[in-house]
Amino acid sequence: MNKKIKKINAAILIIGNEILSGRTQDKNIVFISNWLNSKCGISVNEVRIIPDKEKIIIETILSLSKKFKYVFTTGGIGPTHDDITAKSISKAFKVKYEYHNEAYTILEKYYGRKKFNDGRKKMAKMPKGAKLIYNPSSGAPGFIIKNVFSLPGVPSILNSMIDNCKRYLTKGSKIFSKTINLYTVESNISKKLSSIQNKYKKYVDIGSYPFFRLGKIGVSIVSRSASQSYLKKVEKDLINLAFKKEIKIFKI
Amino acid sequence: MNKKIKKINAAILIIGNEILSGRTQDKNIVFISNWLNSKCGISVNEVRIIPDKEKIIIETILSLSKKFKYVFTTGGIGPTHDDITAKSISKAFKVKYEYHNEAYTILEKYYGRKKFNDGRKKMAKMPKGAKLIYNPSSGAPGFIIKNVFSLPGVPSILNSMIDNCKRYLTKGSKIFSKTINLYTVESNISKKLSSIQNKYKKYVDIGSYPFFRLGKIGVSIVSRSASQSYLKKVEKDLINLAFKKEIKIFKI
Repeated sequence: MNKKIKKINAAILIIGNEILSGRTQDKNIVFISNWLNSKCGISVNEVRIIPDKEKIIIETILSLSKKFKYVFTTGGIGPTHDDITAKSISKAFKVKYEYHNEAYTILEKYYGRKKFNDGRKKMAKMPKGAKLIYNPSSGAPGFIIKNVFSLPGVPSILNSMIDNCKRYLTKGSKIFSKTINLYTVESNISKKLSSIQNKYKKYVDIGSYPFFRLGKIGVSIVSRSASQSYLKKVEKDLINLAFKKEIKIFKI
Repeated sequence: MNKKIKKINAAILIIGNEILSGRTQDKNIVFISNWLNSKCGISVNEVRIIPDKEKIIIETILSLSKKFKYVFTTGGIGPTHDDITAKSISKAFKVKYEYHNEAYTILEKYYGRKKFNDGRKKMAKMPKGAKLIYNPSSGAPGFIIKNVFSLPGVPSILNSMIDNCKRYLTKGSKIFSKTINLYTVESNISKKLSSIQNKYKKYVDIGSYPFFRLGKIGVSIVSRSASQSYLKKVEKDLINLAFKKEIKIFKI
């Protein structure tokens, strides 16, 4: 490998009973993880989903913010009683939970002074010293305190805001991936695949994922690496493996 | 409330780089959480998603199995090199990782003696003393060791197996839920909602979730409780709130 690889990691913390209970299908993990890798070269190394409970939020924030370079939270920053993320993070970091002047001004302007009620004002309350993540969709900003980035839970709003996090993030090496789909079953290739993984273990992570699509059985071999040249070497070995075993390859 | 509520909790541990990297949308959390609640009265209180790394799997299994009554893992029990769940859990609990006689017999029969290669044999290796979770779809069983239930990552296979976990689980009180959708925004009802939540805080958890569907803006108020009579009381208060604020309700 020519360039030195710069590994930067992050964790995602989904705060919300609705995800834990199975009522709502989370869509933010896939979006944030892909965005972090493709736009910033940051890898998500852990995800947690926890309930809207202050004690649990405090413990988890403290644990993840120590363990990872960045933590992205989603959910719990709206106007209702179950939105306790900002308050809990303030407590976790032992800073005041108070009105953020700029957020207050943004929200007052967004709603108009007459309609700026207590619920809406609550969305301007944040940990003291937080920086804002601007929200082009619905006014209420997210915030950054220490290495924690707090975003809303509604996917369309989160998606519209995330680019505003970019300037606060140290970029790492992008991880490239290459998928080869084989018309076979895992146990037919597991031995050879293992030796290919061993050969390149320093540079490439190879994952094997069976699938059942349109009535067809197959295996997706996904190779991930910061080095595109090593990915090509693995690809060559995989094509060779398929050729020797007379396995059809489709859609490389 | 007439009956005593029996709270039983569980955690879900998703093991797999493909979910962390955002390549694959997880579907197992929603399924397992709903199944546990509706069929067994068990609430999922935490979810973690971690990579296929032995050290991390060991640490997380030990932590979650102490903290929760049950732990459900998905992924990493197939035949390839990245399937290290069974081995890692063996190490976590300091028991041998060895062939399970019955699993070996099942798999040998499923594939036929001649086609029962090393990759397939690997799927019969488990923590010593594990009980099997039978697999009606694709032969390879899951397993139970202590309070940890290990299932495969492929949703269709997992779904076909989960009923076989039921007889090993202590049942708790089912949590019922009631959703009321209001044509309003959260900040319009946050104050009243908060006082309704306070009134019933011992018995009912009320969540508020904004949505944007078919061009319409609304809020889903989801009440969850082990008591259906308290749910009805909350529902009455919510309908009253909507009536007073002249908010349209749809699809209760």
